[in-house]
Amino acid sequence: MTLPHAIVETPVFMPVGTAGSVKAVPQHLLEELDARIILGNTYHLYLRPGHELIRRMGGLHRFMSWPRAILTDSGGFQVFSLNELRKVTEDGVEFRSHLDGSTHFFSPEHSMDVQIALGSDIAMAFDECTEYPADYGRARKSLDLTLKWAARSKEHFERHKHERPWRQGVGCRGEGTEPTQPNRALEWGAVDFEGKVPSLFGIVQGGMYKDLRRESAERLVEMDFPGYAIGGLSVGEPRELTREVIAETLPLLPADKPRYVMGVGYPDEIVEYAAMGVDMMDCVLPTRAARHGLLFTSEGRLNIKNKKFAEDEGPADPNCDCLVCRRYSRAYLRHLMAAQEPLSAVLNTVHNLAFYLETMRKVREGIEAVGAA
Amino acid sequence: MTLPHAIVETPVFMPVGTAGSVKAVPQHLLEELDARIILGNTYHLYLRPGHELIRRMGGLHRFMSWPRAILTDSGGFQVFSLNELRKVTEDGVEFRSHLDGSTHFFSPEHSMDVQIALGSDIAMAFDECTEYPADYGRARKSLDLTLKWAARSKEHFERHKHERPWRQGVGCRGEGTEPTQPNRALEWGAVDFEGKVPSLFGIVQGGMYKDLRRESAERLVEMDFPGYAIGGLSVGEPRELTREVIAETLPLLPADKPRYVMGVGYPDEIVEYAAMGVDMMDCVLPTRAARHGLLFTSEGRLNIKNKKFAEDEGPADPNCDCLVCRRYSRAYLRHLMAAQEPLSAVLNTVHNLAFYLETMRKVREGIEAVGAA
Repeated sequence: MTLPHAIVETPVFMPVGTAGSVKAVPQHLLEELDARIILGNTYHLYLRPGHELIRRMGGLHRFMSWPRAILTDSGGFQVFSLNELRKVTEDGVEFRSHLDGSTHFFSPEHSMDVQIALGSDIAMAFDECTEYPADYGRARKSLDLTLKWAARSKEHFERHKHERPWRQGVGCRGEGTEPTQPNRALEWGAVDFEGKVPSLFGIVQGGMYKDLRRESAERLVEMDFPGYAIGGLSVGEPRELTREVIAETLPLLPADKPRYVMGVGYPDEIVEYAAMGVDMMDCVLPTRAARHGLLFTSEGRLNIKNKKFAEDEGPADPNCDCLVCRRYSRAYLRHLMAAQEPLSAVLNTVHNLAFYLETMRKVREGIEAVGAA
Repeated sequence: MTLPHAIVETPVFMPVGTAGSVKAVPQHLLEELDARIILGNTYHLYLRPGHELIRRMGGLHRFMSWPRAILTDSGGFQVFSLNELRKVTEDGVEFRSHLDGSTHFFSPEHSMDVQIALGSDIAMAFDECTEYPADYGRARKSLDLTLKWAARSKEHFERHKHERPWRQGVGCRGEGTEPTQPNRALEWGAVDFEGKVPSLFGIVQGGMYKDLRRESAERLVEMDFPGYAIGGLSVGEPRELTREVIAETLPLLPADKPRYVMGVGYPDEIVEYAAMGVDMMDCVLPTRAARHGLLFTSEGRLNIKNKKFAEDEGPADPNCDCLVCRRYSRAYLRHLMAAQEPLSAVLNTVHNLAFYLETMRKVREGIEAVGAA
């Protein structure tokens, strides 16, 4: 995918940088891991520090000094998952900030405004993420809303996407850039944004109902988005059901446009879905699990807190080349967790991301090899 | 100073790596900052993960993958500062672990055993850090104990220092090293420890009493340590008093051996003391303050949480070349703190350490220039 801020090879796994930071990992280490695109959460950034502030600072890329690509979700998921007291109407969702209880309102139009102000390369349509389980009537109603909101999202996005905050000719700090001005302001890197605009992807909902998913996919394709996501998965359903919905829905989405499954998954899952043809995935799992001491390795998962590692001199993963596995022992990683040292989160996360990104790189190599044969 | 694990130019500021980690900073970033020697806290490492475990793993350098120098304190300070219920006798100190309340006993001999097991390049004599304020009688009594303990420390250390856990011919992971074995074990780097042993420094106490300090210094010099520290400062006394005690005590210590003031200080302090002839200093200030949002810069201190920085596009310190100031804005650093992001501690700490280490580098350059002139 050629995006305004980066060329991204697919299939790709996107680390989640919730509030403008992939937790515990400095941006230069993300670059070293060759992450090309990360996720930003619209809900969190809207609440803090605010999309208008970020717009004034030239957009999220510049604000967080991430020169590569960013995808923002619509804010819909967190509005629903972080807020029990919320009021959904045709127009949008009224909710209370989990930070200070203040009242806010998200609509398709407002979500587009926020994402455009953040300046992501890819924005997502504002949808209702159908809960699980949901009976057919509920999923039907939810889908109706999502489809109306998809149309409104697109209409508003197309009208305003040129208002993205990227400063023509000016990039942001990142690898290989040097300050262009002696006064060390944040202006540097010559990047050409002339004529470039963000893209809006549609999201397929419909609960676990095959016909609703079909209808959702078809209606979205009629709207002609530049990319499509399958949402409403990883919401508590059994894994076989996740796979089933993906298997049924994917073929209904144009294969010549990016197809993104949101919120997945475990390492074997992302390999499986990539082999099925999924182009993009995101999940907090590698980063969140890392902070809880769960490391993903070529030999399976390990819980680094386990006392069996207390004197284990070997690396977390003997087949991993990341800076953590090249340098630190399992014993040390275990100690850092036990001692609740801040470095624990840094190292565990760097390894898990390295594992996920390397896994996807191998998948891409494999796909390429198969293509060449 | 030529130490077994590194050559260290003085005057030097030593970052504190309390429990085997300089909080939030991976070892390769410490190397990039050109830190040559760091501090490990004997009390904390003794309690967790334990000095015997660390010995079995080849010592603290290997355990934490820090190939450069390490200085350990004696454990004395934390035994006193972290434990209200403690029993001091001629023999040593009985105290309760702050982790689980278990009872432990530290004596000069035991402190030496622990530090030798940890394998630091420089160990410190086990002393009683006299509290402030202390009347003359109290400081007198405390000094008597410290002097007895200094002699016992030295005697025991000299007898056992050869038992340090360094593995001949084998270094530990760090910059410029590659695994020497294809099975990726932690054995690599050819380092020659043949005949090399750690050094024990004596600590001058005596409260704020000039004559007691004099006596302490003279008695220690009689014992002929390879280096001397001035302890019992930064314990709540006014800064003028700190300076006074240093000014009076320093000339009593041999100028051709390292002279170390423990637990200082603010940036202007470390410059001042270095100019007075102090060779080594350590303090949690740059690292701890960082985690609270207090950044030290060439333009003075700034509290990054302040809302005046909310849209400040400039770097923390316009005159700093560290990875934080080259890349991130004050606005972003402020956001990270407000959002309680783990990256906040990483970036703030890297900057503060860069500032301290660069400050000392300039002092060394200045001293060199003066020497050459």
